[in-house]
Amino acid sequence: MPSLPESGDPYNDSDALLGHYERIRGRSVELSATLAPEDMVVQSMSDVSPTKWHLAHVTWFFERFVLKAHVPRYREFHSGYDYLFNSYYYTAGDMHSRPCRGLLSRPTVDEILRYRAHVDRHIVDLISSADDAAAFLITLGLNHEQQHQELLLTDIKHVLSQNPLDPAYREDAAPPSAAEAGPLAWIELPGGVMEIGAEEEGFRFDNETPRHRVWLEPCSVASRPVTNGEFLAFVEDGGYRRPELWLSDGWATVLERGWQGPLYWREGDTNFTLGGLKPLDMDAPVTHVSYYEADAFARWAGRRLPTEAEWEVVARGRPVNGNFVESGRLHPAATDVDGQEQFFGDVWEWTASPYLPYPGFRPLAGSLGEYNGKFMCSQMVLRGGSCVTPADHVRDTYRNFFYPHQRWQFSGLRLAKDL
Amino acid sequence: MPSLPESGDPYNDSDALLGHYERIRGRSVELSATLAPEDMVVQSMSDVSPTKWHLAHVTWFFERFVLKAHVPRYREFHSGYDYLFNSYYYTAGDMHSRPCRGLLSRPTVDEILRYRAHVDRHIVDLISSADDAAAFLITLGLNHEQQHQELLLTDIKHVLSQNPLDPAYREDAAPPSAAEAGPLAWIELPGGVMEIGAEEEGFRFDNETPRHRVWLEPCSVASRPVTNGEFLAFVEDGGYRRPELWLSDGWATVLERGWQGPLYWREGDTNFTLGGLKPLDMDAPVTHVSYYEADAFARWAGRRLPTEAEWEVVARGRPVNGNFVESGRLHPAATDVDGQEQFFGDVWEWTASPYLPYPGFRPLAGSLGEYNGKFMCSQMVLRGGSCVTPADHVRDTYRNFFYPHQRWQFSGLRLAKDL
Amino acid sequence: MPSLPESGDPYNDSDALLGHYERIRGRSVELSATLAPEDMVVQSMSDVSPTKWHLAHVTWFFERFVLKAHVPRYREFHSGYDYLFNSYYYTAGDMHSRPCRGLLSRPTVDEILRYRAHVDRHIVDLISSADDAAAFLITLGLNHEQQHQELLLTDIKHVLSQNPLDPAYREDAAPPSAAEAGPLAWIELPGGVMEIGAEEEGFRFDNETPRHRVWLEPCSVASRPVTNGEFLAFVEDGGYRRPELWLSDGWATVLERGWQGPLYWREGDTNFTLGGLKPLDMDAPVTHVSYYEADAFARWAGRRLPTEAEWEVVARGRPVNGNFVESGRLHPAATDVDGQEQFFGDVWEWTASPYLPYPGFRPLAGSLGEYNGKFMCSQMVLRGGSCVTPADHVRDTYRNFFYPHQRWQFSGLRLAKDL
Amino acid sequence: MPSLPESGDPYNDSDALLGHYERIRGRSVELSATLAPEDMVVQSMSDVSPTKWHLAHVTWFFERFVLKAHVPRYREFHSGYDYLFNSYYYTAGDMHSRPCRGLLSRPTVDEILRYRAHVDRHIVDLISSADDAAAFLITLGLNHEQQHQELLLTDIKHVLSQNPLDPAYREDAAPPSAAEAGPLAWIELPGGVMEIGAEEEGFRFDNETPRHRVWLEPCSVASRPVTNGEFLAFVEDGGYRRPELWLSDGWATVLERGWQGPLYWREGDTNFTLGGLKPLDMDAPVTHVSYYEADAFARWAGRRLPTEAEWEVVARGRPVNGNFVESGRLHPAATDVDGQEQFFGDVWEWTASPYLPYPGFRPLAGSLGEYNGKFMCSQMVLRGGSCVTPADHVRDTYRNFFYPHQRWQFSGLRLAKDL
Repeated sequence: MPSLPESGDPYNDSDALLGHYERIRGRSVELSATLAPEDMVVQSMSDVSPTKWHLAHVTWFFERFVLKAHVPRYREFHSGYDYLFNSYYYTAGDMHSRPCRGLLSRPTVDEILRYRAHVDRHIVDLISSADDAAAFLITLGLNHEQQHQELLLTDIKHVLSQNPLDPAYREDAAPPSAAEAGPLAWIELPGGVMEIGAEEEGFRFDNETPRHRVWLEPCSVASRPVTNGEFLAFVEDGGYRRPELWLSDGWATVLERGWQGPLYWREGDTNFTLGGLKPLDMDAPVTHVSYYEADAFARWAGRRLPTEAEWEVVARGRPVNGNFVESGRLHPAATDVDGQEQFFGDVWEWTASPYLPYPGFRPLAGSLGEYNGKFMCSQMVLRGGSCVTPADHVRDTYRNFFYPHQRWQFSGLRLAKDL
Repeated sequence: MPSLPESGDPYNDSDALLGHYERIRGRSVELSATLAPEDMVVQSMSDVSPTKWHLAHVTWFFERFVLKAHVPRYREFHSGYDYLFNSYYYTAGDMHSRPCRGLLSRPTVDEILRYRAHVDRHIVDLISSADDAAAFLITLGLNHEQQHQELLLTDIKHVLSQNPLDPAYREDAAPPSAAEAGPLAWIELPGGVMEIGAEEEGFRFDNETPRHRVWLEPCSVASRPVTNGEFLAFVEDGGYRRPELWLSDGWATVLERGWQGPLYWREGDTNFTLGGLKPLDMDAPVTHVSYYEADAFARWAGRRLPTEAEWEVVARGRPVNGNFVESGRLHPAATDVDGQEQFFGDVWEWTASPYLPYPGFRPLAGSLGEYNGKFMCSQMVLRGGSCVTPADHVRDTYRNFFYPHQRWQFSGLRLAKDL
Repeated sequence: MPSLPESGDPYNDSDALLGHYERIRGRSVELSATLAPEDMVVQSMSDVSPTKWHLAHVTWFFERFVLKAHVPRYREFHSGYDYLFNSYYYTAGDMHSRPCRGLLSRPTVDEILRYRAHVDRHIVDLISSADDAAAFLITLGLNHEQQHQELLLTDIKHVLSQNPLDPAYREDAAPPSAAEAGPLAWIELPGGVMEIGAEEEGFRFDNETPRHRVWLEPCSVASRPVTNGEFLAFVEDGGYRRPELWLSDGWATVLERGWQGPLYWREGDTNFTLGGLKPLDMDAPVTHVSYYEADAFARWAGRRLPTEAEWEVVARGRPVNGNFVESGRLHPAATDVDGQEQFFGDVWEWTASPYLPYPGFRPLAGSLGEYNGKFMCSQMVLRGGSCVTPADHVRDTYRNFFYPHQRWQFSGLRLAKDL
Repeated sequence: MPSLPESGDPYNDSDALLGHYERIRGRSVELSATLAPEDMVVQSMSDVSPTKWHLAHVTWFFERFVLKAHVPRYREFHSGYDYLFNSYYYTAGDMHSRPCRGLLSRPTVDEILRYRAHVDRHIVDLISSADDAAAFLITLGLNHEQQHQELLLTDIKHVLSQNPLDPAYREDAAPPSAAEAGPLAWIELPGGVMEIGAEEEGFRFDNETPRHRVWLEPCSVASRPVTNGEFLAFVEDGGYRRPELWLSDGWATVLERGWQGPLYWREGDTNFTLGGLKPLDMDAPVTHVSYYEADAFARWAGRRLPTEAEWEVVARGRPVNGNFVESGRLHPAATDVDGQEQFFGDVWEWTASPYLPYPGFRPLAGSLGEYNGKFMCSQMVLRGGSCVTPADHVRDTYRNFFYPHQRWQFSGLRLAKDL
């Protein structure tokens, strides 16, 4: 059982859990506090969910998987919400069509805030008496909510980017940075049998387990992510016009969607950010590139992407600090700190690894088995967290995953090379 | 010049015009007053526009075609609105893509209300000194706004209908009616050369002119629209499963969209209305049927639809009263008033006539020539106004038009037969 | 009953009918004789049918509607063909999907020729003893087959045009023409009550009846169709870049499909024809334009298209001669013959009239009622026949019809103007 | 350089190479000999190419990459073929759109046979004097042609399957088999560091190299593929109606395409085969299932699919014999031969492994680098060859690959389980 609570875990210390719960739940509301109700309705593409849907869905997660399972005679807040706010748990019942989330003006933001308050009251009551199983589920729900905090920000960025008025999420986001990227160095990784995956302690998602052995060939991994300046050189060298640099599916995507650069690059070296239109920072890590673009850049550069195993082995033991959502920057930047290799924060880094079950993988039991396992096909693993990830959410074994064409996340890349 | 003001017209009596202006502009705001901001953002299909877009677009119409043309040194409220709120006037500049109106969370409703106030101030100033040309354009703008008031209601109905919670636009809309439809009678129309189209007096759209002669064969036109009860008999007789009753394009649409009844009919003889889910009123005129359905019903009944000329000749001289938006019912109902043949109000009536230019038709000059003329292809004419049409907006020469597959308007039908 | 045989009609003179039958049926085979079997399989778009499908479908028409109805104990050639070769007669049974006709490699061309021979034997046997009803149906079948001969040619032209090798249907088609178009003159039509539609004699389709009165305003109709040279002036004047010249649906089509000129115009004033690539003949009538393009050209020229009533009244009484399929040219050309106004042959002429039932229209009884009537929506009438129409197939009351965006037929235009 | 010829290889023994060339090239023509020209034109979906396109494309491969590179003053057969028959080699020039291959009736089959003869003459001339590089390219061309022989058969099967007449490719294909599947046994694989990938001898594709180490956990692999009977039990247990058994993308595909069983299963336990409709053989390996279906079956069975490394290690050293195209059966069957575990022939076996470059992978130089490498994304590896694979084409290191939703290949599965 990869996810049972361990002694010392937050989820069997009820005071700690209560603190986490209040902090994390409150954070979601704060993140939407500066938005107008109008902003919180829009779904700008199927991948995106409206802000208010995020606020409701994470609440439904607690109601459906914690309160209904662990609070006798719990009465649901609204009988229609189970259908509206189930995301993809088929074994938990029918659900509203994902691409139609933006058609729902009701419940309003105010109604959803009342829903949150209702569920919060019951969860807080439960925490004091929660057994290990309930505590684990609450902890899972909080990690789930942190994932949606990140999605809330990436989604609202996409929504606002569709507007010719270029509105900012927060005027003070993406401030100028004087930090320089510094020269690229290489971190050597000797080959051999190594271990990756999460140990049996602390919270981790089922997809990080079990810890297992892999064979790695010797290689080197870059000391920092690829920068906007470096990516611009690729663009200016005809990168988006040279099919030989691309995977076949990638080139088809370039042609079909008319890609000419990363998602939010605009004319004249400007960049749409959560702070509105800003000058493109050449030292900052490039972001909002798809796997196809990351792969093509690496081929152009005569390098390759690291595998997730290579990434994890090299990142292991490094402090998980960097530019996370708490900085309020909400945009990547270079770092001047010596020896800071930016494995964590700033941008998720595409790896060369498809998202697959680790050998011996067992999904969570019941409906929560749908959380991660059923997506283990056709997606690629990203590592390290981004400038909109909560700092305490990510770790060196953490596996994020998206389809190779997707690029509305804060996704960048780091190079690797064979020795 | 079909549209120049005449003596006695509201638009060269500045006091009258001011009154009209304030009443009609205020009415738009009232219509949206009970909606949440969230409701006013959603675009549920390409044909539908968000409520707040309607409120802004009609304002832009005054700003673009009146203030910029007739007020020296007028400064536009916001430089980005010309692009966002131009609907389809190519000769007036580029415009935002219609199917993407629901992606715009900004400007917010509050900002749009400020835009309205700004334009209202300038129009009110202008009215006192407006020459005939300006007065005509303001009058055109008010008629335009009334059209959008109707669209606002039909659009929000569609938006709300997409929500599994079945929210009401107004709880008191579509109240029960005890009125009975009464037996169908036939109004005879002798054939011969007759005239249709608008006279050269009062406001009318360019598409109603010029008045001209037509040859009509003798026929009879029904004394009231087809009712829900009558349409239900068609449904129960397998109307939606019998291709021989349908136009070829209509049958293809039935199969492709899985139509089994009018748009807002639900299981168990219930009906989604602006007042939420209600029992289906068998005596009320059927509504939200497409031209294809109207035509198939008529074929099933051994009748046909009247042409627009037949309709106009039969309707001429009858008082323009009935169930309009002012009743607050916002839903069709039978009428018990003797001799009231419901030519006006309740439901727009599909005619057998494609929307074409009348012989000698001349569109308005300049960009406003795009208002009506360029749509004269592949659409069908509807006559008479509906329960969401302003009472003083419609007349016997008024031509509404939609594509034969469309049915989100309050569209019904009246039968005719050859003699 | 609009379509019953009359005394003197071919279809109750069995010798004449036999002659027609053998000539027309033989002609279909001749038209495909120079094609390779490979050519006869391809369906280049949904509107197009493969050559071998045409050869089989017209045969099925005789088998299904004549032999099965009038020959006791007739045994069908193949039990699977009823499904494969029914085009759109829902009341005659299920059918193969139209856009999938090009997926059928079997039956082969040889098998279809055997099918034709089988049906021919039985029809020839029947003719000697056919009653009026059978004779009418055979006559209808022959007129039907002539329509498909034209479609066979327009369809194979489209098929071959998709091939980068630019293959010719026949090398000797579309030879150079020295004829000049001559200056445009205007034929005046005084207004008033007039009659159009087919008389009750000879074969005509149900959609040409009944003859009926119409009111016409005075107008003038051009003495010849618009030429390639004239249309090129429109193109060079930015015709395809100026939205104000187009119907709204037309402009959307121009943008969506990237139209820059008529369908088969190629770079450098060349033109894909049934004879392969040829220089564009500036004096020949322009062809392969949609209704949208015809309408835009007329607006650009300050004219309009004639209605079908205007066309018919002006064309009435003129000899039905011109450049038909029998000339072997298979391409439009100017005519030098004085007083020859090209109302017939060369190009079908778009009219301003939607395809509608005439007042009092009654479709044929039974399944054959689906032949014409169910298409009376959203299509426009074309008149006069083309260079691939059989000469004895067309007449002044003949109504062809296509959707306004379609242009793979030999469709051109003639101008009209109000007086 | 993974693909250079070695001493003893066929491709530097010119007599042996000539023999291979004539045998393999002749085989392609034989495979199409019983088809009608009509059969050879059709493209039933984008994944499928017409038979005649296959015959031409493999010829173009020799012309483009051998003759033009190695025969001075070689004159191409037709200047238009380079465009028509380039499949996906962007660096070799522009190409005809893949989904439009079925629009090309020309060149005809006869013309393509002449093209083949022309190229054959020049290749045969070249072989006698070919250097190693040319000999390698010819060998590559022959392996390429064998791949297209298999595709030719899987594609024509799909083409014929679209025809309601259920035509057979060959009447004698898929004859009844009395062989029984026998009980399932498990082959144990101890874990540890092992090697997979091709050695540096003999012909192998670049994607099979380099040989490299992997870490494997202990597991067991089934002794034969899953049978139709076993798969039927899954279907009858509601396999296609239970989302919890499926990958998320797989379930979406089931719903979207309405899958209810393997591709060619028909009503009443019949099966469309290259021999036409046949009873479903319950003992034969199930085939024409997608990766999604293979994965769902394995989950239902409480097992999993083997990785490609597991498959290769277990298959290594077994004789490459079985039911290949040479048997003429052209359909899978059980085998009664004791100890025959069917790793080769009958059905390609989906593995759990995405198609990725092996560590240190180097694609061929130049345009031929596009052969394999650019497809290493979002596809899954299949192993072992099928009943339509040439026997001498496949080997234990051979990697086939398709997208997880594709199932028109002869694709089945073998189970595995952890120890």
